[in-house]
Amino acid sequence: MNSQQIHLASRPTGMPSQANFKTVDVTLPALQEGEVLVKNTWMSVDPYMRGRMIVSDSYIPPFQIDEVLEGGAIGEVIESMNAQFPVGAKVSNISGWRTTFISDGSDLTLLPAVGLPDQHFLGVIGMPGLTGWVGLFKVAQLKPTDTVFVSAASGAVGSVVCQIAKLHGCKVIGSVGSDEKADMVKAMGVDAVINYKKVDDLTQALRDAAPEGIDVYFENVGGAHLEAALNVMNPYGRIPVCGMIADYNAETPQPGPSNLLLINTKKLTLQGYIVMDYWDQYGEFVEQMGQWLKEGKVTSEETVYHGLDQAVDAFIGLFEGKNKGKMLVKI
Amino acid sequence: MNSQQIHLASRPTGMPSQANFKTVDVTLPALQEGEVLVKNTWMSVDPYMRGRMIVSDSYIPPFQIDEVLEGGAIGEVIESMNAQFPVGAKVSNISGWRTTFISDGSDLTLLPAVGLPDQHFLGVIGMPGLTGWVGLFKVAQLKPTDTVFVSAASGAVGSVVCQIAKLHGCKVIGSVGSDEKADMVKAMGVDAVINYKKVDDLTQALRDAAPEGIDVYFENVGGAHLEAALNVMNPYGRIPVCGMIADYNAETPQPGPSNLLLINTKKLTLQGYIVMDYWDQYGEFVEQMGQWLKEGKVTSEETVYHGLDQAVDAFIGLFEGKNKGKMLVKI
Repeated sequence: MNSQQIHLASRPTGMPSQANFKTVDVTLPALQEGEVLVKNTWMSVDPYMRGRMIVSDSYIPPFQIDEVLEGGAIGEVIESMNAQFPVGAKVSNISGWRTTFISDGSDLTLLPAVGLPDQHFLGVIGMPGLTGWVGLFKVAQLKPTDTVFVSAASGAVGSVVCQIAKLHGCKVIGSVGSDEKADMVKAMGVDAVINYKKVDDLTQALRDAAPEGIDVYFENVGGAHLEAALNVMNPYGRIPVCGMIADYNAETPQPGPSNLLLINTKKLTLQGYIVMDYWDQYGEFVEQMGQWLKEGKVTSEETVYHGLDQAVDAFIGLFEGKNKGKMLVKI
Repeated sequence: MNSQQIHLASRPTGMPSQANFKTVDVTLPALQEGEVLVKNTWMSVDPYMRGRMIVSDSYIPPFQIDEVLEGGAIGEVIESMNAQFPVGAKVSNISGWRTTFISDGSDLTLLPAVGLPDQHFLGVIGMPGLTGWVGLFKVAQLKPTDTVFVSAASGAVGSVVCQIAKLHGCKVIGSVGSDEKADMVKAMGVDAVINYKKVDDLTQALRDAAPEGIDVYFENVGGAHLEAALNVMNPYGRIPVCGMIADYNAETPQPGPSNLLLINTKKLTLQGYIVMDYWDQYGEFVEQMGQWLKEGKVTSEETVYHGLDQAVDAFIGLFEGKNKGKMLVKI
């Protein structure tokens, strides 16, 4: 059995390009007792993967040159020597960026039988969904009376954050980078959407949208978004720091906001977190999110690229704003 | 009875100067029933007062032009028509920047009879001391195993933070702006002192002093200090944001650190706080700090200017690094 894999060819500086990746065909060995052969049907591309392409002391080890990349994927067992994962079982796994792979089962999770499309488990009811839910409820301790500002509101995480903050009773303002995305976020029922590329003064736009001030800023972007949010935050505001995508591809370090003193004078809390610290709460999350999805209270927004050979384009597209909702590759 | 007062003549831009202040003599009326006449003996100058000299939406209203300034002071009751505050009583008050004043008692607190010099109640066992204690124990949840980095380590707050973190069992690294201050902080028993004006690379100096990484960064300064601290913080590190003195006199906004993404990847918490939210814990603090002071476990570092006419120099001196420990004016 062959497997087609995407390897890291070189470490990107600045925006990644096709030249940083290569496609490699490998032959898989015969299955051993306890092993299964999985054929991936969906894979995820996520902004955090950019961080693994450089060497740093981050929370996960960097990808290695000339090795296959990793990431979330959904697959189907097509050969099995492991009773726990029979042929036909659908599994979520972290062996994306390849068509097939062999596993001893330790890194596989059977998809919960909740009657949702497979690919939702890479998005709204998977890692990005849990990331948004944790940031709002476990980090920011969201209250129904909060006014919430969400940057990258049309992204995989942001689109979940907007919807569940609205369900919680909050006023929600989203920021996006195109009118098309603004339409998508408006359709989710948020109270106001800012196309940051069309406003001269993001602080003023935010003040106009939230004259009462912001209580929770869900931070996906950094830079000018953080500066504007700090300006408009209310005292004791909370800022769950999920990511700062504006910084991921910076070739030279970009200066931060000039108004960080407001953290002190407004008694703000910025808290960085990563979703892997909260996987033990995935069960609670799935129960709540599965219910919302089935009731139609949350919708899954997805942008789909087709074929493993489109995976690099899909990944680069994340930083070019090409996705609405979750960016997926159908293999 | 006359009172000499310092008024705000104009709002400073950048570093304050004598021209922003003026001395005014006023005649006080006769006492009414319930009132006392207080003669101030000590007054405090503090960096936070700079913030009140401009118009902003800060946590306390700005000083008014052509009105007397305010701030912490210690005085003695010299005339009384209020049984609660008899002649001779020593009171802490917030009517600094003047020689005498009339009060109905509602803004006066009798000095606790714990056998300490009066002026300590403006410093180590007053507002700056409580600020340090709250930041470490209530905000950062200090643990004995923490390595703590303290900026402005020789200041009124920083010098308390260094000493009580050591008492708690922590490894402590201080940053100061002169060799003389470094000697003072070393004498307090900290593990390492960095004179930031003498190092080319503050991050490297901090790494050298704390190869194990920093768990708590007590933020008094901002700018390059925050950037270096973020670089050397350990995962789940805590940053109580007490102030950012580097920003107080900036005529144009200074860009912030370029490495704020580390808040996410290292899962850090930055929490701004102001001491006035914690006055209800002053009793607990006084008990502990009073004991430490009497046992000689904490020493009070003080720089004293003499006479109300030196008060503006003392205040400006805060931003020129002229104080070791608490900056005080003996009236």
